[in-house]
Amino acid sequence: MKLRFAERVVNSSSDEVQDALNLILSLTERPDVISFAGGLPDPDLFPLEEMMQISQQVLMEEGKQALQYSSTEGYIRLRKQIAEEIMKDAKVDASEENIIITCGSQQGLEITGRVFLNEGDVVICESPSYLGAITAFNSYKPRYVEVNMDEDGIIIVELEEALRENPNTKFIYTIPDFQNPTGRTLSLERRKRMVELAEKYGVLIVEDNPYGNLMFEGNRLPAIKSFDKNGHVIYLGTFSKIFCPGLRIGWVCADKEILEKYVGVKQSLDLNTNTMAQREVSAYMKKFDINENVDKIKKVYKRRRDLMVNTIKKEFPDSCKYTQPSGGLFVWVTLPESMDASNVLKRALDEKAAFVPGIAFYANGGKKNNFRLNYSSMSDENIVEGIKRLGKVLKEM
Amino acid sequence: MKLRFAERVVNSSSDEVQDALNLILSLTERPDVISFAGGLPDPDLFPLEEMMQISQQVLMEEGKQALQYSSTEGYIRLRKQIAEEIMKDAKVDASEENIIITCGSQQGLEITGRVFLNEGDVVICESPSYLGAITAFNSYKPRYVEVNMDEDGIIIVELEEALRENPNTKFIYTIPDFQNPTGRTLSLERRKRMVELAEKYGVLIVEDNPYGNLMFEGNRLPAIKSFDKNGHVIYLGTFSKIFCPGLRIGWVCADKEILEKYVGVKQSLDLNTNTMAQREVSAYMKKFDINENVDKIKKVYKRRRDLMVNTIKKEFPDSCKYTQPSGGLFVWVTLPESMDASNVLKRALDEKAAFVPGIAFYANGGKKNNFRLNYSSMSDENIVEGIKRLGKVLKEM
Repeated sequence: MKLRFAERVVNSSSDEVQDALNLILSLTERPDVISFAGGLPDPDLFPLEEMMQISQQVLMEEGKQALQYSSTEGYIRLRKQIAEEIMKDAKVDASEENIIITCGSQQGLEITGRVFLNEGDVVICESPSYLGAITAFNSYKPRYVEVNMDEDGIIIVELEEALRENPNTKFIYTIPDFQNPTGRTLSLERRKRMVELAEKYGVLIVEDNPYGNLMFEGNRLPAIKSFDKNGHVIYLGTFSKIFCPGLRIGWVCADKEILEKYVGVKQSLDLNTNTMAQREVSAYMKKFDINENVDKIKKVYKRRRDLMVNTIKKEFPDSCKYTQPSGGLFVWVTLPESMDASNVLKRALDEKAAFVPGIAFYANGGKKNNFRLNYSSMSDENIVEGIKRLGKVLKEM
Repeated sequence: MKLRFAERVVNSSSDEVQDALNLILSLTERPDVISFAGGLPDPDLFPLEEMMQISQQVLMEEGKQALQYSSTEGYIRLRKQIAEEIMKDAKVDASEENIIITCGSQQGLEITGRVFLNEGDVVICESPSYLGAITAFNSYKPRYVEVNMDEDGIIIVELEEALRENPNTKFIYTIPDFQNPTGRTLSLERRKRMVELAEKYGVLIVEDNPYGNLMFEGNRLPAIKSFDKNGHVIYLGTFSKIFCPGLRIGWVCADKEILEKYVGVKQSLDLNTNTMAQREVSAYMKKFDINENVDKIKKVYKRRRDLMVNTIKKEFPDSCKYTQPSGGLFVWVTLPESMDASNVLKRALDEKAAFVPGIAFYANGGKKNNFRLNYSSMSDENIVEGIKRLGKVLKEM
């Protein structure tokens, strides 16, 4: 039959982004290619033994509840643990009333778009920013204003300019810690300034923080949310990078008045998040120290970050710049302005190496001379060999 | 701060429906009330022992994959099993290419709305219809045309009239088997006629079929989808009523061209459905006979249906009509036209008994003299005692 789809999926402005996502996926799956394109955690670091204990325990002790429908806002004990342990680590003062459970933080992004964005509303975001957020917000047809970053994250003077020039801004979308895709971290001072600006201009901040716990040196910076006095910050968290992504457990931390709207939307999206998985994460946090698991992850990722950065230093031509992230999963490479990373990717694939071209991460498209490298899911050997291959291509070009 | 929500959540036309849902929830939770308001499966029938075996097996044999991100369309082995076992039972000829996994069939409803509905498009639905579907579609602001039912389901003459009068109809939404809320089943002949009408008028049929396997007598009727020659039918299925709802595993069975759009939307909603749960359901279906589990469920629900219908016959005044479902979870009661079920509910609560007033199930509201009774999650004692209490109230009124 002749299908008549809704306009929103026919003329999707997110097609380019979607294509890029699909490219990542297909590249990741070719077994002969050393691909830095993924963004996956290393499955060797999943706490398998502990999960086996926990899943038995949950089924034994609370199996009937664990396999039943449950409340849309999420399992209350888990919400409490998130408030009292994880949010506290980020210096955020919250209770279970400020937490709802989502199906990964991707669902938090989707609901945020639905709850706040009218067509044409402005979203201010970092340039570049996270692909999945752009895809989620795109459904609600906002206009994006990109603000430049330096090594300390978004540039505050430019952020204020963007706020002044765009009175219909709904929120600032930011990934403050070890940003995807750049690996950069917003400085302490700028976090405070961002909240002041949100107050001054009456906008929200959507703080997407999947990597905050994965700092390789020193202490975690306080979340932007920790400086929030008047409910301007919506914090999105997830267990995907500190525990296991397959369970799809994320959360939103915000004022109760905001969360009421989120719960209404989530109810129509999927009724509730997997009950069993919520109870497993909760039981895991009760029985084990999740910070020990995080330490284990950090140690491995730090070694890989070092190896990647050191190999880049040796193998890439001097004209290439790159970030040196102090945590998280990604290194961001900037080529000379005349170069197009998509062309580099084509050549790299001949050499059996791959990455994500940076263009996918710009909300308004256009910038072509960057690419993202992932190290979290790469073996030491592949990091060295893959970076060598990329270095060879870059030198030739 | 002053919150500026998106229009779609401020002026939500689904507020009444939402309120009704919240009422169900709050009633369900009061421990002193015998509540027929729920729609939950009986947790005593969850295959706990088997799940304990299965979760160990999955973690042991495929733990790393089971805890990792996975493809948006879902675990391929499970998609195959759904196509080759469950859809085949419904007489539908499908392969894994026609199946994607969703987070419950609620997510299938949400995606259907997003993929097909422009504002003002017409959705033709049964009168009454399923609350959760109406809530999901409401986000996309369709206009509903309700078509009357009799004991054989939607009345085909009236359906054709609705199609003729509403050329901007996008789809017919129907729950053909043991409908929620009425318990009625669409006859075989009408299934064929509905597909012919969809062809003739160039519209889709969204067949929401969570209860099809739960027939108490005879064989399951072939799904509407089984008569579909040209991709007019989108079938939504779920493991919630035949296995466990807490795992949130549902599916959509449709043409590949349609599913491509669904996958694009699902990616922005939540990336993928819980990987572990998908693999658990798959491993369960491989190791055990899910039909044995279904038989166990049917036996218990049938007994409760019998008990409820027989007690109603004894205790309710003759002026009350009620359906006698041949499967599923619900009985639908129709009061004399002058009576308002909401008033009955108020009086019933004084007697510590509850149900869902029928008004919540009418897409355009208005009809007040019905209510829905659930028997699946009720003990024999509570069915008898609760129906007696309702009978007392009804007789007094």
